[in-house]
Amino acid sequence: MIASAIANANKNVSEEIMKEIKGGVCAAEGFQAASYAAGIKYQGRTDMAMLYSERPCTVAGTFTTNIFKAAPVVWDRDIVYNRGRAQAVVVNSGIANACTGEEGMECARRTAHAAAKVLGLETEDVFLGSTGVIGMQLPVEKLEAGARALAERLRGDAEAANEAARAIMTTDTHEKEIAYEFEIGGVTVHIGGMSKGSGMIHPNMCTMLGYIMTDAAISQELLQKALSDVVVDTFNMISVDGDTSTNDTLLIMANGMAGNPVIDKEGADYDLFRDAVYEVCLHLAKEMAADGEGATKLVECIVRGADTKENARILAKSVICSSLTKAAMYGCDANWGRELCALGYSGVTFDPNKVDMYFKAGDHELLIFTGGMGTGYSEDEAAEILSNDHVEVIADMHMGEAGAVAYGCDLTYDYVKINADYRS
Amino acid sequence: MIASAIANANKNVSEEIMKEIKGGVCAAEGFQAASYAAGIKYQGRTDMAMLYSERPCTVAGTFTTNIFKAAPVVWDRDIVYNRGRAQAVVVNSGIANACTGEEGMECARRTAHAAAKVLGLETEDVFLGSTGVIGMQLPVEKLEAGARALAERLRGDAEAANEAARAIMTTDTHEKEIAYEFEIGGVTVHIGGMSKGSGMIHPNMCTMLGYIMTDAAISQELLQKALSDVVVDTFNMISVDGDTSTNDTLLIMANGMAGNPVIDKEGADYDLFRDAVYEVCLHLAKEMAADGEGATKLVECIVRGADTKENARILAKSVICSSLTKAAMYGCDANWGRELCALGYSGVTFDPNKVDMYFKAGDHELLIFTGGMGTGYSEDEAAEILSNDHVEVIADMHMGEAGAVAYGCDLTYDYVKINADYRS
Repeated sequence: MIASAIANANKNVSEEIMKEIKGGVCAAEGFQAASYAAGIKYQGRTDMAMLYSERPCTVAGTFTTNIFKAAPVVWDRDIVYNRGRAQAVVVNSGIANACTGEEGMECARRTAHAAAKVLGLETEDVFLGSTGVIGMQLPVEKLEAGARALAERLRGDAEAANEAARAIMTTDTHEKEIAYEFEIGGVTVHIGGMSKGSGMIHPNMCTMLGYIMTDAAISQELLQKALSDVVVDTFNMISVDGDTSTNDTLLIMANGMAGNPVIDKEGADYDLFRDAVYEVCLHLAKEMAADGEGATKLVECIVRGADTKENARILAKSVICSSLTKAAMYGCDANWGRELCALGYSGVTFDPNKVDMYFKAGDHELLIFTGGMGTGYSEDEAAEILSNDHVEVIADMHMGEAGAVAYGCDLTYDYVKINADYRS
Repeated sequence: MIASAIANANKNVSEEIMKEIKGGVCAAEGFQAASYAAGIKYQGRTDMAMLYSERPCTVAGTFTTNIFKAAPVVWDRDIVYNRGRAQAVVVNSGIANACTGEEGMECARRTAHAAAKVLGLETEDVFLGSTGVIGMQLPVEKLEAGARALAERLRGDAEAANEAARAIMTTDTHEKEIAYEFEIGGVTVHIGGMSKGSGMIHPNMCTMLGYIMTDAAISQELLQKALSDVVVDTFNMISVDGDTSTNDTLLIMANGMAGNPVIDKEGADYDLFRDAVYEVCLHLAKEMAADGEGATKLVECIVRGADTKENARILAKSVICSSLTKAAMYGCDANWGRELCALGYSGVTFDPNKVDMYFKAGDHELLIFTGGMGTGYSEDEAAEILSNDHVEVIADMHMGEAGAVAYGCDLTYDYVKINADYRS
């Protein structure tokens, strides 16, 4: 519910009240970042990143629902659920430290310990994140040495933030980062985030690796509430391949250095802060969908007129998860029966004769299906729409007032190529 | 439950009591088949098939759960649920007659009427089936002319059955048919079936186009029960791409011409008949999975030691539906974290440290994962197993006694190629 309100208000809120700025995870006061080439698996690129706050942070997080939880997920959950504060994050790419047993947990502990020691923190002040191949053990000495090297490289500028966002990439083709500033109680507050995709992406009550840093002052309870409320309509509404990772982690850290009146109850200040978290999550989520493995375009399914918000979400997600829809999108083929088919098997009940479906790109909208049959649309016009790099599929269910948007991508030769031999 | 019993007993039952024979849908007494090139969409090949029984049949069926039900599905459901008997089937490939509104229903009616008239039947004695592109209208005059031409071509030999199985193919690379004979009450009974895949395959309480003909004498209630019981462990356990079609239809027709004592209560005769239906469905289902669009291999996931049968089914199906698993299978890459990941996000609760996982091909079985970690298996040995055209992934959950098997295929360049521009 909140997200539909946010989504409707979005265009106004973000442009008038929320200003996009540079700086990514370093945009907020007191945050620094670093990256390093530890040689874990990739050659000739960075593969470790550190985020650090000068002051202790209130923290919140959402995590994968996969039964196989990677060691860093187990580690971070414990900090969020039982401690509620932290001050640094160490992330590596290349190896996921998932399905690695007690040896993997020990590696996680030692990495956090090495970072904490050089930063003058307690071991439990350090979050961990890993992404890459499942089932391989991390080279623990390289991680420890990397943590020490990262601490020496910390800087608070936009370039450092950008380099950190690059270091955590696996098959991503570009880094994902965003930052905004806005005012709470007359005080300027900043929020910035970074994330990575781009395969095994089908977040479920959680997300892939995402890190959001803010200098807002806010209670832990409301920080977690804002994150949890926003995730269901942002990261949980994207899918690249339907596979929910063992490592999905979304963390938010708030160090309070903006000096705003502490947000400790719901109301206008909380709403504004939550909107900012929503903007950051939505931006990063859409970037992850558009940069899905092998993808050539962002496919957005907008469901309107559903009976409930939850049904709208299920319908929209069913369309963007359909392999046949995704392949047709790659071929710019207006084979619209596939989108309808995906609505039809979603599990949601509706009247097939009441559905209107449109294809849209930019301002170009075309009615494809109404009254239980295809319209006499022009195939050339439809193909032209589908040839854009951002295509919208709009389904109006004519049942009620609820809506949702899901974000996916096309299915291409390159997705198969990337995943037929990812490990080599 | 019945299926696990059947599966366990399978090897013995089928070889000793059930004999595989030639003849497909014409193997049973009194059944004839025909095929015809009606020029609906494909050129230079047949695209219509007719099946006919000399005597009226008791019938049963299972159908797609998709909200968008194709016109022939609406037609056939009405016959199965409200009438319980029929005598012929007319199937076309090329166009699915789905999402075609009242015009599509009218075309279905006229096709059934044309066939009934020339066969001397009532219109409601004729089942219909369509497969192909969704959303296009069928050329009704071609269908009517085709129905008349088919009636003149009916023959009861194996060749006619084989040609009918070929006429209903779309992207299938070969026809799927099977037949068995067995004894009930000292009388020889026959059962034969055909089906087609090979994209938009993710049957749900139903199946793709499948037709089973038997000369057994059995009540309608038990015929439906046998079909429904068997479907959950055969057609409902396969997936090519996760997309549940608008047209899935599985029909069984029993004309009683074998002359066996009528099966009108549960017991040994019913069990044997149900086993025969199971054998036919399992054979056709596996053929459909192995011949999935673009597939180079059959991937079988065998789950053992689950706490319940339903959980075993969910776990097995989650693995064969994983895009990442499917792509790794194509690349013969033993990236086993993907199979575990798919077990982990299936929604079933289990202890990840108790799971054992094996890769297997033929008699060659390799333990990959145990005690929460990968084993020190040989990558070369694993790659050799995965290079076979029939690969088994075995997961032992060590929770209970329940098991299930799901059947899928790999994800290849050709799947993308076929579906990026299927309509042209």
